[in-house]
Amino acid sequence: MFQNLVHAKVFQDYIEQSEFPTAPANLYDPIRYILSLSGKRIRPLLVTLGAALFDEAVLEASLPASTAIEFFHNFSLIHDDIMDKAPLRRGKETVHQKWNESVAILSGDALLVKAYEELAKCPSDKIVPLLRLFNQTALEVCEGQQYDMDFELRADVSQDEYIDMIRLKTSVLLGCALQMGAIIGGADIAAQQQLYAFGVNLGIAFQLQDDLLDVYGDPETFGKQVGGDILSNKKTILFIQLRERLQDSDKQLFEHLLGSDVEQEPDKVEKMKALYAKHDIRDFAEALKEKFTAVAYEQLRAIGVDEAKKTTLFALADALMNRKQ
Amino acid sequence: MFQNLVHAKVFQDYIEQSEFPTAPANLYDPIRYILSLSGKRIRPLLVTLGAALFDEAVLEASLPASTAIEFFHNFSLIHDDIMDKAPLRRGKETVHQKWNESVAILSGDALLVKAYEELAKCPSDKIVPLLRLFNQTALEVCEGQQYDMDFELRADVSQDEYIDMIRLKTSVLLGCALQMGAIIGGADIAAQQQLYAFGVNLGIAFQLQDDLLDVYGDPETFGKQVGGDILSNKKTILFIQLRERLQDSDKQLFEHLLGSDVEQEPDKVEKMKALYAKHDIRDFAEALKEKFTAVAYEQLRAIGVDEAKKTTLFALADALMNRKQ
Repeated sequence: MFQNLVHAKVFQDYIEQSEFPTAPANLYDPIRYILSLSGKRIRPLLVTLGAALFDEAVLEASLPASTAIEFFHNFSLIHDDIMDKAPLRRGKETVHQKWNESVAILSGDALLVKAYEELAKCPSDKIVPLLRLFNQTALEVCEGQQYDMDFELRADVSQDEYIDMIRLKTSVLLGCALQMGAIIGGADIAAQQQLYAFGVNLGIAFQLQDDLLDVYGDPETFGKQVGGDILSNKKTILFIQLRERLQDSDKQLFEHLLGSDVEQEPDKVEKMKALYAKHDIRDFAEALKEKFTAVAYEQLRAIGVDEAKKTTLFALADALMNRKQ
Repeated sequence: MFQNLVHAKVFQDYIEQSEFPTAPANLYDPIRYILSLSGKRIRPLLVTLGAALFDEAVLEASLPASTAIEFFHNFSLIHDDIMDKAPLRRGKETVHQKWNESVAILSGDALLVKAYEELAKCPSDKIVPLLRLFNQTALEVCEGQQYDMDFELRADVSQDEYIDMIRLKTSVLLGCALQMGAIIGGADIAAQQQLYAFGVNLGIAFQLQDDLLDVYGDPETFGKQVGGDILSNKKTILFIQLRERLQDSDKQLFEHLLGSDVEQEPDKVEKMKALYAKHDIRDFAEALKEKFTAVAYEQLRAIGVDEAKKTTLFALADALMNRKQ
């Protein structure tokens, strides 16, 4: 949706110039492959938009940091897909499926190192703070993935734990991308932190919206099977909140639905949605999403630069959150 | 053998202060575990000795770089052990064996990031060259591991390919450790490169010696099963050179031995050793090892600092290569 922004186009040109050796093919072919599946490339765009907020002239200088973020994101996809045993990514075979697990482990490792190679190309007076922020974020993303896997084996995940997991697993990277841009753009610490908080809160809101869309999305536009999370008993915000609210008879029905696949219980999705409706789960989740969205917007508004410069970031946030401001 | 050096002790104190969070336990426990299996810690010692060669006063300043190298080495062990399906490491269960593969992938990733966290603590005016060297080396180590896996599936690996594989997989990290020390010690580029070449050539010689010891080592002191490489058809320098020299009838015997396990051919080790003897393979490999060792020593001798300062590095090389100078 933002592929036509000049910032996105300049990044596209830059990353397409990335050259990887031809040998060993089993190390570098998977990297070319995952990068060719290019998603929306929101994260690198956040770096350049974060930089442009403070200094339009640093667009070029922000491209290695954008690339580092995009490489890191793709590294995490390769490794997460192994751990999640996912056969498909963006509609194509995952790396471990197309090659094998060893190839996916090692090419993921190499892509993480390539991210640091890009960091080493950033403006040299900014490398230390960029490296520190990137390292902290990378560790947090690993922690988030570990919590996500741990939670699959636990019945009693609380809402706070869930929010913290999605913050670590997906949101801090958005905050990091924006703050890296701000660092390169010469922002002061306070503005860096506000932009980081904008990204993190927007990321949490976006993940909550993802949970909502999986159940209430328009089948025409959603792209995935509506109700997929219910069918796979995924611990979404809806699941967690419902479990906390249930008592007695509804609890039995809930447990019955969790223990049934679609053959045993063809109306599993509809029956779970009925429970959500009875316990006002959708409204609750919408309100929680709005809360995080509002905090995000508040942070962006508070940054002390011309409001006109924030237009693209607000528009991007609106588009991500399906909002009309 | 060098654990009593002041440099080794200072490093030991430093790395023991490394603190990892307690949660998520499945991310950080495996890191504490692999580091507790502590091997000889030659690589961090090379960093501090490389630094001390040029400036004794930078010992403290070299500790984060030493730790980065040690963390990287342990990261590569965790991931290599998954790919090699190894049940044991340093006589203890490997991480993927003790936990599971997902835990091993993710805790390895986190340990690689921790290595970069240490790099970010290095003297700030040296971070860019240190980061570039470290990144290049890390990629080469990935390439070496990929070639090693590729070679298992190929019958026609040449000697040059083999030497290049062991250079990438194990030797460049020794060169990198020494050069990182040299950078921190303020060495000029020429001296940095000589020290790097010393490490790389010594590393290749060490790996060739490892191939020799597996067949000709003293069972009392070798620590592993003598002949293990022959029993597993491992493509060592002996194997590759023998295959290149064989013709006709001996070739048939060679192929027969490769196709036989120890139950079908109880004398597999002895018969292979007889082929090695007949074709002068041991002498050839010893000569090749000496060639790389000589190049290594020549590089160290050529560095323009007081000879007295090189004593410890020569002694370490002698000890590693079982040489009496």
